[in-house]
Amino acid sequence: MNYVKLFNEGNKDQKDLLGGKGANLAEMTNLGIPVPSGFTITTEACNKYFDTDDNIVFMPEIMQQAADKIKAVEEKTGKKFGDKEDPLLFSVRSGAKFSMPGMMDTVLNLGLNDDILKGLIEKGNERMAYDCYRRFLQMFADVVLGVDHNLFEDALEAVKNENNIKLDVELTADMLKQVVKKYKETISQQGKQVPEEPSEQLKMAIEAVFKSWNTERAIEYRRINSIPDDLGTAVNIQAMVMGNLNDNSGSGVGFTRNPATGEKKFFGEYLLNAQGEDVVAGIRTPKNIEELEKEMPEMHKQLMEVSKRLEGHYKDVQDVEFTIEDGTLYMLQTRTGKRTGKAAVNIAMDMLSEGLITEQQAVLQVDATLLDQLLHNVFDAGDKKLAVDEGRKLGQALAASPGAASGKIYFTSDDVINQSNNHKTILARPETSPDDVGGMAASVGILTAKGGLTSHAAVVARGMGKSCVSGFEDAKIDVKNKTMIVGDKMVKGGDTISIDGSTGEVFVGEIKTTASDIMSGEKTDFSERYQKLMKLADKYRKLGVWANADNPRDSKVARELGAGGIGLCRTEHMFFEERLPFMREMILAHNGEKRKEALDKLLPMQKEDFTSLFKIMEGLPVVIRLLDPPLHEFLPHSEKDIKELAQQIGLDVEKIRERVHSLAESNPMLGHRGSRLLLTYNEIAEMQARAIIEAACELKKEKLVVIPEIMIPVVAFSREVKDLRDVIDKTAKKVMKEQGIEVDYKVGTMIETPRACVRADDIAQHADFFSFGTNDLTQMTAGLSRDDAGVFLVQYKQKGIIDADPFKMLDQSGVGELVKIAVERGRKVKPKLKIGICGEHGGDPSSIWFVHDNGLDYVSCSPFRVPTARLAAAQAELR
Amino acid sequence: MNYVKLFNEGNKDQKDLLGGKGANLAEMTNLGIPVPSGFTITTEACNKYFDTDDNIVFMPEIMQQAADKIKAVEEKTGKKFGDKEDPLLFSVRSGAKFSMPGMMDTVLNLGLNDDILKGLIEKGNERMAYDCYRRFLQMFADVVLGVDHNLFEDALEAVKNENNIKLDVELTADMLKQVVKKYKETISQQGKQVPEEPSEQLKMAIEAVFKSWNTERAIEYRRINSIPDDLGTAVNIQAMVMGNLNDNSGSGVGFTRNPATGEKKFFGEYLLNAQGEDVVAGIRTPKNIEELEKEMPEMHKQLMEVSKRLEGHYKDVQDVEFTIEDGTLYMLQTRTGKRTGKAAVNIAMDMLSEGLITEQQAVLQVDATLLDQLLHNVFDAGDKKLAVDEGRKLGQALAASPGAASGKIYFTSDDVINQSNNHKTILARPETSPDDVGGMAASVGILTAKGGLTSHAAVVARGMGKSCVSGFEDAKIDVKNKTMIVGDKMVKGGDTISIDGSTGEVFVGEIKTTASDIMSGEKTDFSERYQKLMKLADKYRKLGVWANADNPRDSKVARELGAGGIGLCRTEHMFFEERLPFMREMILAHNGEKRKEALDKLLPMQKEDFTSLFKIMEGLPVVIRLLDPPLHEFLPHSEKDIKELAQQIGLDVEKIRERVHSLAESNPMLGHRGSRLLLTYNEIAEMQARAIIEAACELKKEKLVVIPEIMIPVVAFSREVKDLRDVIDKTAKKVMKEQGIEVDYKVGTMIETPRACVRADDIAQHADFFSFGTNDLTQMTAGLSRDDAGVFLVQYKQKGIIDADPFKMLDQSGVGELVKIAVERGRKVKPKLKIGICGEHGGDPSSIWFVHDNGLDYVSCSPFRVPTARLAAAQAELR
Repeated sequence: MNYVKLFNEGNKDQKDLLGGKGANLAEMTNLGIPVPSGFTITTEACNKYFDTDDNIVFMPEIMQQAADKIKAVEEKTGKKFGDKEDPLLFSVRSGAKFSMPGMMDTVLNLGLNDDILKGLIEKGNERMAYDCYRRFLQMFADVVLGVDHNLFEDALEAVKNENNIKLDVELTADMLKQVVKKYKETISQQGKQVPEEPSEQLKMAIEAVFKSWNTERAIEYRRINSIPDDLGTAVNIQAMVMGNLNDNSGSGVGFTRNPATGEKKFFGEYLLNAQGEDVVAGIRTPKNIEELEKEMPEMHKQLMEVSKRLEGHYKDVQDVEFTIEDGTLYMLQTRTGKRTGKAAVNIAMDMLSEGLITEQQAVLQVDATLLDQLLHNVFDAGDKKLAVDEGRKLGQALAASPGAASGKIYFTSDDVINQSNNHKTILARPETSPDDVGGMAASVGILTAKGGLTSHAAVVARGMGKSCVSGFEDAKIDVKNKTMIVGDKMVKGGDTISIDGSTGEVFVGEIKTTASDIMSGEKTDFSERYQKLMKLADKYRKLGVWANADNPRDSKVARELGAGGIGLCRTEHMFFEERLPFMREMILAHNGEKRKEALDKLLPMQKEDFTSLFKIMEGLPVVIRLLDPPLHEFLPHSEKDIKELAQQIGLDVEKIRERVHSLAESNPMLGHRGSRLLLTYNEIAEMQARAIIEAACELKKEKLVVIPEIMIPVVAFSREVKDLRDVIDKTAKKVMKEQGIEVDYKVGTMIETPRACVRADDIAQHADFFSFGTNDLTQMTAGLSRDDAGVFLVQYKQKGIIDADPFKMLDQSGVGELVKIAVERGRKVKPKLKIGICGEHGGDPSSIWFVHDNGLDYVSCSPFRVPTARLAAAQAELR
Repeated sequence: MNYVKLFNEGNKDQKDLLGGKGANLAEMTNLGIPVPSGFTITTEACNKYFDTDDNIVFMPEIMQQAADKIKAVEEKTGKKFGDKEDPLLFSVRSGAKFSMPGMMDTVLNLGLNDDILKGLIEKGNERMAYDCYRRFLQMFADVVLGVDHNLFEDALEAVKNENNIKLDVELTADMLKQVVKKYKETISQQGKQVPEEPSEQLKMAIEAVFKSWNTERAIEYRRINSIPDDLGTAVNIQAMVMGNLNDNSGSGVGFTRNPATGEKKFFGEYLLNAQGEDVVAGIRTPKNIEELEKEMPEMHKQLMEVSKRLEGHYKDVQDVEFTIEDGTLYMLQTRTGKRTGKAAVNIAMDMLSEGLITEQQAVLQVDATLLDQLLHNVFDAGDKKLAVDEGRKLGQALAASPGAASGKIYFTSDDVINQSNNHKTILARPETSPDDVGGMAASVGILTAKGGLTSHAAVVARGMGKSCVSGFEDAKIDVKNKTMIVGDKMVKGGDTISIDGSTGEVFVGEIKTTASDIMSGEKTDFSERYQKLMKLADKYRKLGVWANADNPRDSKVARELGAGGIGLCRTEHMFFEERLPFMREMILAHNGEKRKEALDKLLPMQKEDFTSLFKIMEGLPVVIRLLDPPLHEFLPHSEKDIKELAQQIGLDVEKIRERVHSLAESNPMLGHRGSRLLLTYNEIAEMQARAIIEAACELKKEKLVVIPEIMIPVVAFSREVKDLRDVIDKTAKKVMKEQGIEVDYKVGTMIETPRACVRADDIAQHADFFSFGTNDLTQMTAGLSRDDAGVFLVQYKQKGIIDADPFKMLDQSGVGELVKIAVERGRKVKPKLKIGICGEHGGDPSSIWFVHDNGLDYVSCSPFRVPTARLAAAQAELR
């Protein structure tokens, strides 16, 4: 097995084997771009290292293979590793498939000891040589031997004090000699020793890099970023070039275009007479790259040329590191540059105009999830930094619904509603319930102590496009006393706080926010570029992108953001607030007649709901889901609320209590809901069908194009669909006869139980369309209650039992299998069956790709996810 | 389409088309057994009748086809339908595929009017003719015209009073004339009219029979007996033979062997000068069939010959109806005779000895579910009838666990335990919880007001072999006041009641019970026959039959009843009663160390548990499931209990309350349980694995053969199995090293989430065996909470949305699909993977057949279901 590859033996597509850094060093080498020569120890070696019990055998095997490659490097550089006359030094750097910045270890200037140092002085100069030596000692001791790096900083400080200097640059060769001496003492005082033998140094450094793959912080980082644990890291061993050789040398970093704005201009910093770590360490303030043009015009010219070549080759913005050694430019790294949403759009559209990339490449270049940033307010960066510096950050919880918001905190919906006319408010609750929807709508942001990314607060906030931070478990929210306590800090009702639903951060006090130009509707250069990108996405995508929306506000947003229809209108959201009394009257009715009376009161309101949705969505389909949740969700539960209701509607307290009790369920998730409820209370389905069809008929008379699609929730048995379809069809027939006009409507079903998936063939016979409710389907498939699973899902991710939260990313191998079965069986019976997905996953790019690959017709997601979904759908097609 | 078949055009295998009665009439006709000639209108006609909007067209089509067949009957009988000289009369009888006794309608003596009557008088006699006429008028008016039958009974009574007679037999021809007159008046007073035209009578009677398929009572009957609604009924139209012609005529019914005991002796009753309905109507007391031998020896001889021929042909006991017309015997019906469990065993073993059937046929002949009767006490039939007559029946609820029991009622487990030394007790609770297990064990029977067939009470009672009636919703059980109120009756604590867990009946007062000779272990003729049948079953079955048992008592019963191992030992049942304090200590421990301390106290107890099970099951596998339920199930919930616990263990009330609160779950069914719990608290799995392996090692040192199999509950992800297997294997290794001995053990997993089914290939890599937990799998697959679904599952069965309760009979088309997928995917990876099923379905014959057909290795069921399962398994193989 060949575990070691020279740079010229690899290429950019071998990231699995060589890591990202190694693959790009190989690519640049083969492109003829000046790269110090070197080689890569593969990720396979790293994995083997962890799998093998006996690394006393395995490491020598690695070192033997490395020895050959060292020879090749020696030939190219003319220097020799361990040579006392013209020594070759190495940098030893980690490099995994995915970048894990700052997580893993590096040793530079490796290959030095007191003897070899002499050769380095000979060939270069004394200051550079001692500078290299002290850097090497510190890094090796820290990374390989585990000596506390603070000890070295203290030692360096001591030397500077003794010599009355303040800055590192002021260190002379003599002073650096003193530093080296002190460093050696520090190491031996810790009972450690840096081996003399360069090859032993190299071996130990390689092992240390391997081990850094499995440090706690690295594992934690991978968990947060959903990076698999079994990738391993490669180790890049590269000839050192000396940016600290003299004033004709230096080091720098940069992006080929501006990563914040996308501006087509190299964006970077550098330091003369420095090694690369100095640029990022913040000890000296680096100079803007424009300075380089003046200081070293030839070097600047070469750097710009390399930059252009790299962009031309990679077809994307590059994030590079370079070193200049005595007037010669070397590239040490290149990788795709991370960027903001705004930059992503600008860069893609610029590169398209420049002819650098095709339309398809432009569509593929933009990370779809970044579009989200464009739709929401963001904190002013300086103001936020100030807040952090002032210790005003209270903590960080779940980024439940994006957008930054500042406002006065209140702990009840009533308070929020009362205060929101006077100033901006933030609603903070232990957790929210449907009763809080009014308060949520009135606030600029929502904060909850409990609940995950699919909690009520999160789902509703995303639907509303409100900022929301959920699961802020460090906070004790005391509704009664109107306080929130986090550690030793207390926030009182009416105090100003700021939350960032894109990051999950919570601050005390105000942080300025800046608005989105996409949502404001203003026509700017940028908004036009954004629209151009979206048009390209629509040109290439085949998958429909619809939105989940229950009210005119959300529907308007959805339509503006390009939704092709409403894929899920949850009617239960329509029965709270001022309609709740009628709903409760209906539930508490003791016979069908009384129930019908209450429903008759709800009918005109429902009809009004649908009329307004149909108008907004004119010409587009609107999928209306009939009432889903179990009835107890609409009833009060506390003794106090029951009493209040009893007074309100003039019913016996005992009767209400009895009804609440009789409707209570052990597992409401699997309870008397959806089609089951509608079959028990046909009247509800009749009322809703009537409201839909009456609204549609009346609008059709006004010449509006209305496309109603009625959806039956929670289905396990095909007869449930058949029987409810009968109810709907009979009602529709009756209404159309009354109205004297016919409308086209469809009747379909949610597919959200595993049974519905395996019996999709039977169900398809009675359904015009399927819509996967992947939230509930995930709950039932894996036996996970979304409300309860938080506790152990976090542990599961930490331990790698699952790669990602299945409520965030579709569980393709589990839930996805059932989706495949359902699509196949449904289409076997009805080849043209329209199939969509309307769970929370509808807005997640990887889930959209899955959905696309499995032949679904559309996804339906939160309105604010529509742009992301449109782009992801196009990418699914173009990949 | 041919909707009408002469008897000689059919055979016994056409029950789908001709119904049971029609198929057997056809079979007998073709065997040359004397059957009055006739024809059958098929079930297809019935279904078409219901599907067609326009029966004004369809019925004439039927009648046209019938006309041809009537001609054929006329030719055979020499009589003519509607003829005034020698009229042919018809019986019009319903006949579905499955017998639905008393549910559907019949019209006899059809084809009469005033004119035709004259011919009947001419050819027979006046009394017979008027007797037929009044019977016809009453039945036609009742069945076809919907006239209240009480009116006819009143009219008849009036004639009898006028003539000063008491019995129907005393009615002379003249009196019958008066009856006919009164009947006609009654009908016209109701504004109805019997048509004159015989063919119109026939058409209307046929339609009435069709319609009787869809009466409420028929639908209800089908629901209770799981008969599909779409079978439809056939209509049998047969020439009347006159048992009421004279004293050389008569009618009777009987079984070819005794259906109660199985004795090989014709068992029947008859009446001279009577039509068949008189025999069953109870107006005259029928005579024992032995009398017939004296009264009409030739007829008796012929009947015995026919009986023998029928048994020889059908290879089973027949339930027959016959009529003698003036010294000629006619058979009107034959069908397989229903019988008791005892009779079933006796008949099968007798017929085998007689050489009438083969071993295989004997195994197939016995309805496996009947074996249950043999294992439980039954009420003395006479004593029960007395109780009914005395109005002591309180009601009927769910037959949750079979067996009859009488005892004094108590409403708490403590009372039951205190009183059970003095007398037999019955525990009555609103519903039971694990705290009641002690009381359940001490009682002779359990009665609950709530809960279905898979409620805690039902499952535990079946496991214990105790009689249990559950879901007695008519009863208000008031634990505080120690009363049970049913309607206007009140039962107080200490009163005697009787319950029959085989029927669901509840009585006030004592009813004598007789014991099972199988369970007593006594060697009787019958127990030997039973053992012979069981040996045959074992000879032919391939499927293993294991038992679910958690304690020595159940394990012993299981082994005695022939279980091949324990397929499910639920360890959570071991942590209640005197161990609950330690369990609670473990749960309330605030760190891993404290938790381990509490677990250390549980360890020796667990080890003792397993030691005793291993001893009882020596040489057989014992599958032990690690702790499954969420921890909150072990904690107190009421404020009072929390306070009590706080005092007991010296912990702060607030702390306990907090822990109870933090462990509470919205949907515990999908909560922090099974493998998830064990992964959070590895210590629990370690303790249990240690207890199992220590027990096994120590017994092996004593030369006992111990086969422990450790099972992981609630798995959705393969890594859950892998990680827990690691914990178990490591613990086992350590223990075996300590003990200095190796034991073979297996580690397997429950398959009870849909995700585990579709990812069975991944999971199989880490599992030695699978065991389907079909209870939970049903809950998750169909999205049904067993605890909540009762409300609408009853409606679903009524409406025919489901054929059967999926918690009682495996939902083959839904859950079964996932089982198939799991078996296929699991075995793809591990072809010899051992697979079983341990849900409640393991004891249900149709589910066992499914399991057999899909290649599983074993079923595991309640100990008392083992005989049924052994027989059903053999039948699955032999079908």
